[in-house]
Amino acid sequence: MRWNKISDAVIRRLPLYLRVLDELAEESGTESISSQELGVRAGVGPALVRKDLAWFGEFGKQGVGYEIAYLRDELRKILNLDSKLSVGLVGVGSLGVALTRYHQKRSAEDASFNLELTALFDSDPAKIGTRVEGIPVYGLEDILSQVKEKGLNIVIITVPAQEAQDVANRFIQAGIQGILNFAPVKLKAPDTVHVVNTDVSLELQRLAYYVPKAKTN
Amino acid sequence: MRWNKISDAVIRRLPLYLRVLDELAEESGTESISSQELGVRAGVGPALVRKDLAWFGEFGKQGVGYEIAYLRDELRKILNLDSKLSVGLVGVGSLGVALTRYHQKRSAEDASFNLELTALFDSDPAKIGTRVEGIPVYGLEDILSQVKEKGLNIVIITVPAQEAQDVANRFIQAGIQGILNFAPVKLKAPDTVHVVNTDVSLELQRLAYYVPKAKTN
Repeated sequence: MRWNKISDAVIRRLPLYLRVLDELAEESGTESISSQELGVRAGVGPALVRKDLAWFGEFGKQGVGYEIAYLRDELRKILNLDSKLSVGLVGVGSLGVALTRYHQKRSAEDASFNLELTALFDSDPAKIGTRVEGIPVYGLEDILSQVKEKGLNIVIITVPAQEAQDVANRFIQAGIQGILNFAPVKLKAPDTVHVVNTDVSLELQRLAYYVPKAKTN
Repeated sequence: MRWNKISDAVIRRLPLYLRVLDELAEESGTESISSQELGVRAGVGPALVRKDLAWFGEFGKQGVGYEIAYLRDELRKILNLDSKLSVGLVGVGSLGVALTRYHQKRSAEDASFNLELTALFDSDPAKIGTRVEGIPVYGLEDILSQVKEKGLNIVIITVPAQEAQDVANRFIQAGIQGILNFAPVKLKAPDTVHVVNTDVSLELQRLAYYVPKAKTN
């Protein structure tokens, strides 16, 4: 692929653009959008919109802007969302269940979401063999076989911090390619596996920086 | 403050460094750390560690590295985490409850977490007046009074997408300074309010980019 070296900051904004285009596709009568409006809707400056998209090709036309249906299809291809990806989740606690519900709701609302949650995993014998929102819960010993059988590409990890690396290792050995990690630890993974960390407490600590307080020092 | 213009990419990494220092502070016998080791533990290159920290002062010593206790205290001050901040959460559905549990667990484990969840909000009369993990649930009509009474600095939004902007407006009018938004919409807020978006589906779509698939085109 020619766009191997594109920064993650660019990749991070593509789903924002895609969401705007998805919304616009539902509004009848709109066929094109300017970088200005796409930027406003996505919360990104128009120059940055043009720069981000230019990494992947010439999508816009001078004076016309971007054709919505075309750009949407192209972004889906770039993001590998033009066909279904299979997603697993390990750790069926309160966060895992909440994410499962959220995911199924998003999938039901958006036929082109294309990220299908197909298997849940937990170590608790009381949970193994049950279903959450219709999705079966497997034991950790079934990770290898289920990654193969379901063709899992991505796993969402919501187990406690001290179990996260061990669980991640099992999925990595089974051939998973992407990890969305909610456990508050830095996971070790080979370069071939992409890890995105989503730690609520880190996000809150980052927000705290922007909260002006009366300080004595 | 002299560090007004520091990029959010830098701020985003400070809690990662703080977490490493918190872990090291629990390990006896370690008093200093090199930028190399701090980088490895935080998953950041050592040159970037030095550059990030240099924005805020001269914390390291040539040949010795960073003194752990001192740098930890300084990072806490920089992030406004040297005293308690009050956090609210609106939307006591499955995700809201999961985040509440997670938050209370983190607070119990780490006495210096300093982000205290003090009030929950929901529009459902069946939930108003109850408690989740000991924290009272208020109605949306109590947002203004509770923001004042509890001194809320930050609110976590976990309501459905179509309600998120209205709910955000109420908190903004009440004087909140930071929003952690889990609703899959781009919130409008004045420059004085800092918004961090955490959208699981956007994170998954971003991960999909890194998942190599056999492609026909």
